[in-house]
Amino acid sequence: MRIVQKFGGTSVGSVERIRETAKIVHAALKQGSQVAVVVSAMSGETNRLLGLAHAMSDNPSLREVDALVATGEQVTAALLSIELNKLGVSAYSFSGGQAGFKTEGSHAKARISGVEGDHLIQHMQNGEVPVVTGFQGVDASGNITTLGRGGSDTSAVALAIAVKANVCDIYTDVDGIYTTDPRIEPKARKMNSISYEEMLEFASLGAKVLQTRSVELAMRYDMPIHLRSSFDLIEGTRVSREDSDMERAEISGVAYNRDEAKVTIKGIPDQPGIAASVFCPVAAADINVDVIVQNISEDGLTDLTFTVPRSDYAATLKLLNQLCISMKAREVRGDDTVAKVSIIGVGMRSHTGVAKKMFEVLAKENINIQMITTSEIKVTVVLEEKYVELAVRALHHAFNLETA
Amino acid sequence: MRIVQKFGGTSVGSVERIRETAKIVHAALKQGSQVAVVVSAMSGETNRLLGLAHAMSDNPSLREVDALVATGEQVTAALLSIELNKLGVSAYSFSGGQAGFKTEGSHAKARISGVEGDHLIQHMQNGEVPVVTGFQGVDASGNITTLGRGGSDTSAVALAIAVKANVCDIYTDVDGIYTTDPRIEPKARKMNSISYEEMLEFASLGAKVLQTRSVELAMRYDMPIHLRSSFDLIEGTRVSREDSDMERAEISGVAYNRDEAKVTIKGIPDQPGIAASVFCPVAAADINVDVIVQNISEDGLTDLTFTVPRSDYAATLKLLNQLCISMKAREVRGDDTVAKVSIIGVGMRSHTGVAKKMFEVLAKENINIQMITTSEIKVTVVLEEKYVELAVRALHHAFNLETA
Repeated sequence: MRIVQKFGGTSVGSVERIRETAKIVHAALKQGSQVAVVVSAMSGETNRLLGLAHAMSDNPSLREVDALVATGEQVTAALLSIELNKLGVSAYSFSGGQAGFKTEGSHAKARISGVEGDHLIQHMQNGEVPVVTGFQGVDASGNITTLGRGGSDTSAVALAIAVKANVCDIYTDVDGIYTTDPRIEPKARKMNSISYEEMLEFASLGAKVLQTRSVELAMRYDMPIHLRSSFDLIEGTRVSREDSDMERAEISGVAYNRDEAKVTIKGIPDQPGIAASVFCPVAAADINVDVIVQNISEDGLTDLTFTVPRSDYAATLKLLNQLCISMKAREVRGDDTVAKVSIIGVGMRSHTGVAKKMFEVLAKENINIQMITTSEIKVTVVLEEKYVELAVRALHHAFNLETA
Repeated sequence: MRIVQKFGGTSVGSVERIRETAKIVHAALKQGSQVAVVVSAMSGETNRLLGLAHAMSDNPSLREVDALVATGEQVTAALLSIELNKLGVSAYSFSGGQAGFKTEGSHAKARISGVEGDHLIQHMQNGEVPVVTGFQGVDASGNITTLGRGGSDTSAVALAIAVKANVCDIYTDVDGIYTTDPRIEPKARKMNSISYEEMLEFASLGAKVLQTRSVELAMRYDMPIHLRSSFDLIEGTRVSREDSDMERAEISGVAYNRDEAKVTIKGIPDQPGIAASVFCPVAAADINVDVIVQNISEDGLTDLTFTVPRSDYAATLKLLNQLCISMKAREVRGDDTVAKVSIIGVGMRSHTGVAKKMFEVLAKENINIQMITTSEIKVTVVLEEKYVELAVRALHHAFNLETA
């Protein structure tokens, strides 16, 4: 068994936590596994370093910020190696560049273009543990680069692929993916397994435990991820290719996101290219549009409604009011008290009537649906934020998610 | 003019200090110089990192400690580059490995085996400023190594040699080398210039401003060092090859060191190999022996006296008491209230009677000389510690050091 174990910031957040983490690595070795480790910076360290950069300049060079924050993981990797040595393990820290992580693209959001992992396999076969800094690599010119948000998970998956690991264990401060948020529905159940596609949908809905990039990479190379807690060594949730088991249930879980605002531009003269004339300036302003609905044209006029992150609400309204004039539309309306609730599951592919059942459940609770969007394995509705808890609990119950 | 500027820990000890340091670099560029910079870790940072390593383990692997503490300079290099960018300077941070510092020897005390500086020359010729981490490099296997004490000065000199600089400016928190300690003799005068050999003697006597290794390297490649203050931009002391000017004065300065203890092993049977039988075990115990005097043999017995750092006094006494028995010597005596006072100067080569004059001056003050040792450009006496100030002032005056 060859494993890559990845430990996030809270799992290495202090000397004590690093000790616990070393025990996990040691235990895997004692079970006969070959192990490589990927670490994040100690929690808070990246922010401390960014604080220094911003104390220096309002607009620090991204190359230098990368070189600066990359030291955070280097510190963790060295400290964990020291602790592993104490336990009798031959561990060696490697920076991204030393480990063989090649990147392309711009600073602060580089992409991994390849990992030269052969020397690491050699170490692992000798019973040694490479402790690799996540989140970073070097570009073709030898500059230190960082991968941006979620980079460490992506580093771990990329390393697992490069060293031909059987699984990539991602240790974090939660013990898996739940059928829904247990703070809303105490009967929420931890899932033993979930498909890559479902994980992507959960991630895009704010399940922050695994970043989309890492799941996409794992899916492309069929690398199983075991998402688990470093605080409690029970089985977590295994993310892998869809299997027959997964097809049984109609849906796998219910997700929600409160970080939503809805805007409508009404009475736009309906002519080719109106979507482009709205969404091009919105995209140029770096605003992420999510659900989009365009009404049926009436009297040659149409309405366009879409959701944006709540933090972009004010900027979006301002932009649309300008567009409203230039496009000769009637008016702009907005609402920042909406939320999204989604049901997710690969079972939708084989079960019919799942969306209909969702709408019936919500209707029965007198919850008005404002917008609907569907994908192959997800149905999302936009509704008033105050209904989130009610909707989540009703759906969780109606789809029998409390029982495996 | 091509310059390497080196800034120590106090010169980059805070965001504010880094701003001041950036101004110094900027000013040199505006004067038309090509500049590369070498930086230390922010003062306190190396100790913070070592503290983490030792919180982890009493005996951390030196490889990992090197990887850990190397981040200290990386942080400074990035922050200084960010500040230089703000001033409109194209600056790029480089880790030791990125800059091309190759090392050999063991971790924590690696030696620089070479610097591949051509890409840095290219940057400098383009008006860009490489900001290089001092104190570190990579070994032949790509491991991060550090150079040990005084490493940053040595990095700066090595870089200056590699990029064929005209001078290596070493900025620190003192403004130069004085004829003696101004706290003892207020008439002490800052020297404009000093030879490498003299600097080495001053350094070995505790003038901590420039480490011996860096001076030796500069001497070997004839690289002038300009030692100066980053807090006060006046001329400092230039360290270079001996020139005709330097030959004028009998001596250049008076140095002292209180960190001395004296031990004597008395009545040793005088036979070949006794020095070896004493100093081999002393060296094995990692005790640095300094001044050594062996008395003329009398009745087939001899006495051996030597000085050690005061911190090694107790260990030395213990060791000698064991040796005393095994060597059938008479007794061991010790005194840890002694000090060393030296006069230093290349002028001694051309002036005769310098040592005699020193002894006369001390005799006139009724100061008893306990031990004497001489080199080509230095005379050192060991005396009771209480006479240090008196001896320093008397010698400073007698050799006319207050006037240039």
